[in-house]
Amino acid sequence: MRQPIGHKTWAIAEGYIPAWSHGPAPEMTSHETVSILNAGDEDARVRIWVYFEDRAPIGPYELGVAARRTRHFRFNDLEDPEPIPKDTNYSSVIEADQPIVVQHTRIDTRQDANALLSTMAYAELRS
Amino acid sequence: MRQPIGHKTWAIAEGYIPAWSHGPAPEMTSHETVSILNAGDEDARVRIWVYFEDRAPIGPYELGVAARRTRHFRFNDLEDPEPIPKDTNYSSVIEADQPIVVQHTRIDTRQDANALLSTMAYAELRS
Amino acid sequence: MRQPIGHKTWAIAEGYIPAWSHGPAPEMTSHETVSILNAGDEDARVRIWVYFEDRAPIGPYELGVAARRTRHFRFNDLEDPEPIPKDTNYSSVIEADQPIVVQHTRIDTRQDANALLSTMAYAELRS
Amino acid sequence: MRQPIGHKTWAIAEGYIPAWSHGPAPEMTSHETVSILNAGDEDARVRIWVYFEDRAPIGPYELGVAARRTRHFRFNDLEDPEPIPKDTNYSSVIEADQPIVVQHTRIDTRQDANALLSTMAYAELRS
Repeated sequence: MRQPIGHKTWAIAEGYIPAWSHGPAPEMTSHETVSILNAGDEDARVRIWVYFEDRAPIGPYELGVAARRTRHFRFNDLEDPEPIPKDTNYSSVIEADQPIVVQHTRIDTRQDANALLSTMAYAELRS
Repeated sequence: MRQPIGHKTWAIAEGYIPAWSHGPAPEMTSHETVSILNAGDEDARVRIWVYFEDRAPIGPYELGVAARRTRHFRFNDLEDPEPIPKDTNYSSVIEADQPIVVQHTRIDTRQDANALLSTMAYAELRS
Repeated sequence: MRQPIGHKTWAIAEGYIPAWSHGPAPEMTSHETVSILNAGDEDARVRIWVYFEDRAPIGPYELGVAARRTRHFRFNDLEDPEPIPKDTNYSSVIEADQPIVVQHTRIDTRQDANALLSTMAYAELRS
Repeated sequence: MRQPIGHKTWAIAEGYIPAWSHGPAPEMTSHETVSILNAGDEDARVRIWVYFEDRAPIGPYELGVAARRTRHFRFNDLEDPEPIPKDTNYSSVIEADQPIVVQHTRIDTRQDANALLSTMAYAELRS
């Protein structure tokens, strides 16, 4: 059996949902995604905290990623405890009770052709 | 002789092949690539597993990267055990019997001008 | 209480502020950002040094990120000790007195549709 | 005095110089860059090897990055021992005699608006 892959604590310093879009929804709606791979044999409970420039962090957003599954969560769709405002700088911390792998992606369709960014999140090696 | 470079287990949490394209094939066809460098002196056997949101993972896709060579594999072109569906979220785990270095890239040409993303994959340091 | 997240020394090798822009300011002004998350319970003092190809580094730019807050600083807006010239290659080193997480982003709007890049910065694990 | 930042061996698995461009040269010429920061107090000698899919690696390209300086080298401009062909997949290994920090960037201007990608390179922690 394969060893678990990843870590339990990850962080994404960049965060920004563009306020407008160009092209058919939902594919071309400007959005940010946190992609979470749980390659292990146990379901993972995931909690996300969102940090802002000028107010206290909000969270946890409580999510689940089943064993041997991936989930690509749009920050745009997070609702509980509250939606994340658009056109606002934020960061996020992702914690799980099982090792996971986390990647951050944005699609920005504010102008005539979309732009993309992506990076592996920061893995806290002590986790 | 140089020490081997890299690790034997890597993961990419993001994965998505856009469903349409704009511009001449094959260069401007929307695609995702896993680029694998084998800088060592032994040929590497590589196995890729692909994880989904709502069904069991598929794989292994069995590939090879010769000693002192690179290969840039398009996920679009993987066929055995089965093609990867377009417009579908996935993740991947890449395992090799030699140390390798892995990077993930997407070109998205759905709109009038292409968009790119790339990131080094997550290296499992225990591997 | 959660352990601190991140490290105290980070580096970004790429740096370049495009010289012109296309679209409404300030959102669509070409810019580079260093996003800094301080998820800890102590305010962080941050110092940035900027390195060039053909002259001595400048800095430190002295900044602050409060406890449990993020700040997304535009390199375009740094002024003390001096503004960073546009259309000029640079790198940066970010040091803090508390653990932080750092990510680098550029938006380039020189042509008809914007382009984006982003990557987690390099974390000096010895810090 | 600050501790040195970085490592001596880095790798970039992705590499591809688009074959054509759109917009004024040299800024908007499609190109790939390896950005190298030498934040230390000793000049660094840097050697780059380039790996291909179907032939032996070429190199070393011998470069220098002075103490406390950065250099952003375009792969397009490397000439000795030979130019890197366009529209060809490659990877690279970067070695230095001092600790450095390495980042990989591409600008692709084949269509009406440019696209960008960037990632920190893979740092071989044993180096």
